Parts: sequence; C-alpha cells; structure tokens
Amino acid sequence: MKPIIPIILSGGAGSRLWPLSTELKPKQFHKLASERTMFAETLERVVTGDDVAFGVPMVVCGARHETQVLLELDASGSSHAKLVLEPMARNTAPALAAAALVQAEIDPDALMLVLPADHVIERPLALRAACLAASEAAQNGLIVTFAIVPTGPEIGYGYIKTGAPIGDGVYKVAAFREKPDLATAQAYVNSGEYAWNAGIFLFRASALIAELDQLAPEILAAARLAVKLARRAGNSIHLDAEAFSGASSKSIDYAVMESTENAAVVPVDLGWSDVGSYATLWEIGQKDSNGNVTFGTTALFDTTNCLAQSHTLPVALIGVSDLVVVVSESGILVTSRERAQDVRLASEAFK
Amino acid sequence: MKPIIPIILSGGAGSRLWPLSTELKPKQFHKLASERTMFAETLERVVTGDDVAFGVPMVVCGARHETQVLLELDASGSSHAKLVLEPMARNTAPALAAAALVQAEIDPDALMLVLPADHVIERPLALRAACLAASEAAQNGLIVTFAIVPTGPEIGYGYIKTGAPIGDGVYKVAAFREKPDLATAQAYVNSGEYAWNAGIFLFRASALIAELDQLAPEILAAARLAVKLARRAGNSIHLDAEAFSGASSKSIDYAVMESTENAAVVPVDLGWSDVGSYATLWEIGQKDSNGNVTFGTTALFDTTNCLAQSHTLPVALIGVSDLVVVVSESGILVTSRERAQDVRLASEAFK
Repeated sequence: MKPIIPIILSGGAGSRLWPLSTELKPKQFHKLASERTMFAETLERVVTGDDVAFGVPMVVCGARHETQVLLELDASGSSHAKLVLEPMARNTAPALAAAALVQAEIDPDALMLVLPADHVIERPLALRAACLAASEAAQNGLIVTFAIVPTGPEIGYGYIKTGAPIGDGVYKVAAFREKPDLATAQAYVNSGEYAWNAGIFLFRASALIAELDQLAPEILAAARLAVKLARRAGNSIHLDAEAFSGASSKSIDYAVMESTENAAVVPVDLGWSDVGSYATLWEIGQKDSNGNVTFGTTALFDTTNCLAQSHTLPVALIGVSDLVVVVSESGILVTSRERAQDVRLASEAFK
Repeated sequence: MKPIIPIILSGGAGSRLWPLSTELKPKQFHKLASERTMFAETLERVVTGDDVAFGVPMVVCGARHETQVLLELDASGSSHAKLVLEPMARNTAPALAAAALVQAEIDPDALMLVLPADHVIERPLALRAACLAASEAAQNGLIVTFAIVPTGPEIGYGYIKTGAPIGDGVYKVAAFREKPDLATAQAYVNSGEYAWNAGIFLFRASALIAELDQLAPEILAAARLAVKLARRAGNSIHLDAEAFSGASSKSIDYAVMESTENAAVVPVDLGWSDVGSYATLWEIGQKDSNGNVTFGTTALFDTTNCLAQSHTLPVALIGVSDLVVVVSESGILVTSRERAQDVRLASEAFK
C-alpha cells in the first residue's frame, strides 16, 4: 500500500474558546488539552510506524497563519510538509477541493487522510487501525468517514446512519444529515443507528474531485483556478485570492457528504472531542483527587471540580468550585462550568 | 503656622495582597482602590491649599524601591521631595526616628505629618481639618494620633482610649493598646470608649526624638548613627546599612505609643481603610447595581457581588458571584470573598 497523505486542516477560528483562541492565534496553536499544541498533537498522529505508512503531510491553513504553521512544522520535525494557503476562509469544501487538486498533480490515486488540527483524539492507535480498515473502500473510490458513538443530542455535528457492511468494520453510509435540529438529533441518538461525523475522512484525491465535479462543480472550478493561478514558493502554495474568493463558503459535509451515493463509514472509538467549550475540556481532562483539571502554572487550595489553565502567568484558585479559569496573552476568563459556552460574550466585549 | 512636613511611610510589603503586591512592587505602587496608585493618592492629600500649608514631603522607603518612588514623585510633580532610604526593613520606629533626625537638621520644631503610603482615605478634607485641630497640641510637644471609630473587633490594629479634652476635638490619650487579643478587642469595641489608631501622626520632630530618647534609646542611637554615616546624593539620603541594622525592628506603636505619657488623639471620620485584604477592597469600593466593584479593563456578565481588577490584561467574568478576581503582571488570583484573607497561600506557592 502506498503511504497515506495526511491533510491537516488548520483553518478554524475557535471563537468559542476566548481568551486562548483568537483570530490571530486560534485554538490549534495552543496547548489546550495537553502540554503540547493541538497542531503538534495532530501531526504526531500521522508519523509513519509499523502499522501505517504516511507520506509528507499537507497543511491547509489561512495565509495569515503561515508563520505559526511553519514554526509548528519545524518544532515537529516536519518542515518538509506542503502548505496550501487560503487567502480567506471559505470553509472545508473549497479547502479540500484545493488540497485534492494539489495532490492530484503528484498522484491522483494517493489516499488522503483529512484531520482537523484542533480536535482531541485520545486513542490515536485506533485512528491508525481505522485507516487500514478503510483503505480498501477508499481505494475503490468511496469517501470514507469515521464515525463516533454520540454521547448526547449535540446539534453541531453531522449524523451518519450506518448501512450495509462492505468490509471488515466498514459500512455503506445509509444517510448523512448535517446539523439536525434538537428533536431530530434526539431521535437519532435514541435510535442507536446514528453516529457523529468527526470531520476525519479518507479518500482518493481523484475520488473527491469526481464527487465535487458532480455535486459542487462551481466550488471545484473556483478551487481549480485558484490552484492554477497560485503563487508557489518553496513548499508553500498561495492560492489565488480572486479565484478562491469565487468559491462559496460551504463545508464538505453540506457540499458532498449529505448528497453523495459514494460514502462509507468506519465506526471507531477514538476518544474524540472537538473541544467546543471549556466545559468539554474539563470533562475529557485528567482530574486530580478533587476533580480539578489543570494545565500550566497553577496552584489550587480547597478547590473542587474546576478547570484552571495558564501557560503564561501563574494562577491561584482558593476556596472555589465548579469554575473555569483560563489565562492567555489575550486576557483572562472566569466563569462557571455551566456558563462556559457563553465565552463569546467576553471575546466580543474586548474586540 | 509653619508649613507641615508630610512624611510618607512607604516601607510596607503588603504580602496579603498577592498578586498585586509583591516584594519588588508592593501595594502602594499599585492602582488598588482607584485609577491612581495609592502612593499618588497619598501625595495628593498633602498638597498645599487654602486650609493647610504643607512643606516639601519626605518619603521613607526601602532602598530597592527608590526608582519606583522617584517615578511616583515625578508623576505627581513632587520631584523635589526628600528621600530617606532604608537599607533594610526595620518597621516604623527606626523609620520615623531617622525621618525626625533628618528633619531636625533643618528645623527641629517643624510639625511632621506621618502618612502611610498604602492606606485609603475617602475624606482627605477631614484629614486636613484634623491636622489643624491637632496642630496646637503637636506644637506643645504631644504626639498626636488620629483615631478611627472601629467597625469590629479587628485584632491587627492599635486601640486608643480617649481621655480628657485638651482642645477643640483634641483629647489626651488615656490608654493605647497595640494589637489586643480578640476578647479584649471585642470588649474595647463594646465599651464605645476606644478607637483605632490609623498609623497617622502629627508631632514636632524634636518631640518624637525626645520620646524615643526616653522610651527607645537604642533605636534612636542606631538611627542617629545611620543618619550621621548616611550617603547623601541629591535629595536622597541612603541610611548607613550597618548602623541601621543595629536598630531593633519595632513599630512606633509598641516603641512609643503604648508607653508615652505625652500622646493626644483627634477622633476623625476619614473613610479610612488600610485595605488589608481584597474583601475590604470590595467593601469600601464603589459598587455597580449588581454589587460588583471593578478596576481596570473588565467585562462582567450575569455576575454579582464580585471584585474584579486588572490593569494589564482584559478580564471577563460570566455567571459568577462573590468572587475576588485580581490580575497583575505577577499572576492571577481567583478566590471567594470569604477566603480573600488566605492569599498568602498563593504568594508562597509561587515563590
């Protein structure tokens, strides 16, 4: 089997995680769930091992984050990676169209593993095993997605209905529904037949291009022009701004996954989280005997069930419970765990 | 009447107010209770006006804080002030001995108004009026202290028992008891006959020297030698380290006030606080309609009865109550109002 090409999607803004995540330095460039950045953790998942061979990674990111990505790549010993730089954010369909077109220049039949740079995966070995399980279906031209057992009626995710088996642990996608309403999401979860789409995909470059040609031809055309007119320097490909701006801003889930007939799914227990709020970060975090999750320089006294995080200044909590305290070079957030989803209030107040 | 010489005592360490107050930058150099530093607020109280004439101030401070004091003096237009620099902290008796000896070189009969640099006085006009009321007694050689109506059995203060009147609003001190135990403090408060010593004094330089000669001769001798051997440069007097270290570390309250027969007291409603904890800062602070006290760049949402302070990074509070949140260049403190007296835990943890 040829090496799988990792495609690191690093275009997210992570506005739900102020003060860590900002437009200038979004979530993936922070030490969010460990003592390493989420970007570094993501790269670590696709190092070649005895189980799976990975090729040179390709990173798709905003042009304004080029320097941060280069620093991350250097620090991870991946300075040979290819960069596809977006002149503006256009969501995942145009981003993946451009990545597939760039990959197709070299080898249109190569398998591409799409990994968002800002997710937590506690069991990376399970991801690698799932790649192997999915590779035959992907080589056969299917868009393979990895499905997570839902823990609740979360309305921000795509829901995948598993169909007939087509291989060992691989199933046809019977239905794909992006961001359902709450009642529908609850019905899906109750049925036991649906799983969450984690935004992780495996496919042939040529297969995705064929799907886009069928289902989102204007996005493919805009991406094709943006790649053709791109300025290339070293490993960096600066997509043409005027051409790329012509692509509509659409996720791959809406543009392809909801409509395609050619999708497969591999259910896998990844220990996955997209860390959409600090409450989630507390839930998935390693807790001490008082239920506290801490990162960085913290000192806690008579404190229970708190999340405390600072990689800059020391932070002390004394006699408090159920709080989220996050410190960054942009500011400080103090909130209750149950109000952690409201941090946009803060980021907007200080804009 | 000759101008009164303000003596600004700026030697305190304020270890109960981490992370604002640190050894390198103690409490008085911070914007604690307003948008100006406590030092600047203190200087503002002794500007000459139609009511009282003040002379050139003298600042007694640790040698390591000379630069910060000079910056404060410059910013307040008081760069002509005299500095008496302590090579090491020796509490207020040696500090005031040195200040009185330095003043006596110029005019031993000048009245000196001693003001700690790290107290809040909400009614500075009352202080000035009290100085006028006290001046005759001080000129007659008494050590005049200003007394505050106690709000509770606080054990950290000196308690003054008011004696016979000797002038308009001026009384002999019948008894002075520094830092009583809780039961005694409660009895004092219940009696209605005692008031707190605020650490603010008015006296003739020569009168304090005479008291010290009587009651604490070794402190006076050490201070005299430290002044004699001092290195003088511009307005700064660097007390001799070896000589000054020979003075025992004692407060003026223990060294003189508890024993002297020559003390008077002026009861005055200053709106005084020594801001011994962040809980106090919340109590004396200007509250918004939700009971919050804020300083600096803060944003509060659904938050009640909190103290939030940051003059560096923006700080956001969402859905919390009864917290103290303080941000400085040294660190971040998050505690409940009722645990605010335990901040030493934090400062020691990060030492």
